[in-house]
Amino acid sequence: MCKILKVLSWRNMLVLSLAMNLSLILKVLNGDGDSGSFWAHKPASSPISESSSSLSFDGNGVQEDDDRIINLDHGDPTMYERYWMQRGDETTIVIPGWQSLSYFSDVSNLCWFLEPELAKEIVRLHRIVGNAVTQDRYIVVGTGSTQLYQAALYALSPRDESGPINVVSATPFYSSYPLITDCLKSSLYKWAGDAKSYREEGPYIELVTSPNNPDGFVRQSVVNRSKGILIHDLAYYWPQYTPITSVLDHELMLFTVSKSTGHAGMRIGWGLVKDREIAKKMTKFIEINTIGVSKDSQLRAAKVMKFVSDSCERSRDATAKSFFEHSYDAMSERWKLFREAVTKSKRFSVPDFSPQPCNFLGRVFEPQPAFAWLKCEEGIEDCEKLMRDKKILTRSGKHFGYGSSHVRISMLDRDPNFDIFLRRISSSPDST
Amino acid sequence: MCKILKVLSWRNMLVLSLAMNLSLILKVLNGDGDSGSFWAHKPASSPISESSSSLSFDGNGVQEDDDRIINLDHGDPTMYERYWMQRGDETTIVIPGWQSLSYFSDVSNLCWFLEPELAKEIVRLHRIVGNAVTQDRYIVVGTGSTQLYQAALYALSPRDESGPINVVSATPFYSSYPLITDCLKSSLYKWAGDAKSYREEGPYIELVTSPNNPDGFVRQSVVNRSKGILIHDLAYYWPQYTPITSVLDHELMLFTVSKSTGHAGMRIGWGLVKDREIAKKMTKFIEINTIGVSKDSQLRAAKVMKFVSDSCERSRDATAKSFFEHSYDAMSERWKLFREAVTKSKRFSVPDFSPQPCNFLGRVFEPQPAFAWLKCEEGIEDCEKLMRDKKILTRSGKHFGYGSSHVRISMLDRDPNFDIFLRRISSSPDST
Repeated sequence: MCKILKVLSWRNMLVLSLAMNLSLILKVLNGDGDSGSFWAHKPASSPISESSSSLSFDGNGVQEDDDRIINLDHGDPTMYERYWMQRGDETTIVIPGWQSLSYFSDVSNLCWFLEPELAKEIVRLHRIVGNAVTQDRYIVVGTGSTQLYQAALYALSPRDESGPINVVSATPFYSSYPLITDCLKSSLYKWAGDAKSYREEGPYIELVTSPNNPDGFVRQSVVNRSKGILIHDLAYYWPQYTPITSVLDHELMLFTVSKSTGHAGMRIGWGLVKDREIAKKMTKFIEINTIGVSKDSQLRAAKVMKFVSDSCERSRDATAKSFFEHSYDAMSERWKLFREAVTKSKRFSVPDFSPQPCNFLGRVFEPQPAFAWLKCEEGIEDCEKLMRDKKILTRSGKHFGYGSSHVRISMLDRDPNFDIFLRRISSSPDST
Repeated sequence: MCKILKVLSWRNMLVLSLAMNLSLILKVLNGDGDSGSFWAHKPASSPISESSSSLSFDGNGVQEDDDRIINLDHGDPTMYERYWMQRGDETTIVIPGWQSLSYFSDVSNLCWFLEPELAKEIVRLHRIVGNAVTQDRYIVVGTGSTQLYQAALYALSPRDESGPINVVSATPFYSSYPLITDCLKSSLYKWAGDAKSYREEGPYIELVTSPNNPDGFVRQSVVNRSKGILIHDLAYYWPQYTPITSVLDHELMLFTVSKSTGHAGMRIGWGLVKDREIAKKMTKFIEINTIGVSKDSQLRAAKVMKFVSDSCERSRDATAKSFFEHSYDAMSERWKLFREAVTKSKRFSVPDFSPQPCNFLGRVFEPQPAFAWLKCEEGIEDCEKLMRDKKILTRSGKHFGYGSSHVRISMLDRDPNFDIFLRRISSSPDST
């Protein structure tokens, strides 16, 4: 055993050392690590407009961009690129060609495809942020929380002959939920619309998204009958978006890196599940659906989450800001500018939120959601069209089980796009 | 760390790090690092038996392993670890923390979540191997070919009121296909069993797996009616398993890195699709199911496939063997030893295959499949139980729509496990 460890350590050191080489060579080549230079390395394009990817952060070229379409339809979290670039190589991951060939990650775990390192970092991050209980919970990893939602439906649906169980959520609800639920016309479950008007007897599943997508409000279940089964989608329950007011303790809670750290391209989500049998069935679904979850992205997510937790711990006794403080500041600034632009426009309104004390950040603040739920002034029936005329793509309220007087707007796009967006909505009606 | 970095310049660090490399490489070359030692670097455990992961390549300890359960139930391609380790850092990938945050990979592509680099390497590898047409085909990437199979069912099912379309495949068929098809009790499609006995009128989907899982035979469709829609699962149509006799040109062909390069943990598969509308619907399914596919694994798959293609090109004018030649040799050796053990046992038989000329390797050979389809001698009704008594876990023929006189056995496990397996099946009946 000692011999193995001895040999092992040399090998590990070699891998580590080679990784250091590579990162150092990159540093040297890039002029001792100017974070901005990384942009030229294949940044992801925004949808529709390829040209947006060539914009620089300094705002140059905004004047030339009057005709460019700004796509704020999706919640693509590219805002976070700047932060992660500024961190340089601290979250760089090196994966050798012989790693993660097997389907299996940890055969002793109920969720056999969950990388132990990711499990550890999930528990640690929740403990540090204080947003969810992980003790005595099963962790199920998924290809984004979208897959976990389907795994939850599969696990929670009755297997008797009672027909598909109804799935409800209060309007405005996340526009993808009806699509996902009814995609394969399952006989296990079916979409049944607005939870607020739901009156049927018998078992049902209620989706509680809190803070809510699209409108950012903190939510509780609204049906409240004895046979209700709850799924809590907590993708946005992180301190950059909303005050962390309590350690949540629900039966089935879903999270994702897409909105917590901004790494949507990883496709990593996780569920915290109280009941062993439910966790087993969710794991079974993911086994049948995709035979597990990318190990590469799990390892990368673990590394990023470790950095986030470390940054929180460092910030306690130093002047350095944590990831969440950085992101809180960015969101706070965006919401301030956005509300100013909305006021100036006189054509739109956005919800007002009550300030709450945040246990994590230790301050009182109003929610500053990842999406803006914008209402067009009286008389404008199609808000999405009005925005489209301004060359801003948004998602109409009708997709959220709501009226077309509202649109959902991503607040997480890159700086140059956000700047153009502000300029366009604050411009006078005549200028469109 | 920051303090150290301040004292030393990046360039100093690089020199130091390169020196470390050199000394570590020398250590390893001098035998301090037997290749087996990498095993202990967090290899995935085989299911059931944790201890298997600590085995070294040199075969030491086999004597102590008489009680160890060998799990050959899954097709876990860990055999390939040795090859990729021997390649050292040539396929190591470095992913910075700010990379692939966006959901989008290439908005100009129909499959908007497909990384352009992976698309390029898929086309190149098929061109070099000559196993499938890529010209005028749409590439759809999936979280393994399992997800693509579901995407294909979603795309190919009629949207009229005719009820679920029947899905058939000739026995013995891949055991997961019925499970996947009926998992959510979809009203779009349903499993209808053996294609050979299928007699119903109207549209149907026939799955053609070639070479076939579990038995390794090359297959054609068997129903052959006018309203049939075909899905070709070509996961094993690579030259280490079967002669490449023609460039396949089917409507919808599925592949995966799990069985081509051995990287099952990446969860990357791809479909080559002739019809634009089908490709669009498959893309839509993956959008709804998981909002795309891990970018990290796509980039890693691209790097590994690039190495494989490079190795093929290098082998044309040099003595170096290509990846496929290496893997062909490994499979050839395993099948030789396996057939000897089967003959020696007098209790089992395996299929005989006809030799065919392989256009890629330029030689004539018999298929040497990733699975062995083993038949127990007359009088043994439960072959899986007999193997279990020998502490070998296999998958019973009954899961493949076949009799329990057969079992499917993975031929892709690590060397030490394969050696124990051979020893156990060649032992006399009394010794079990």
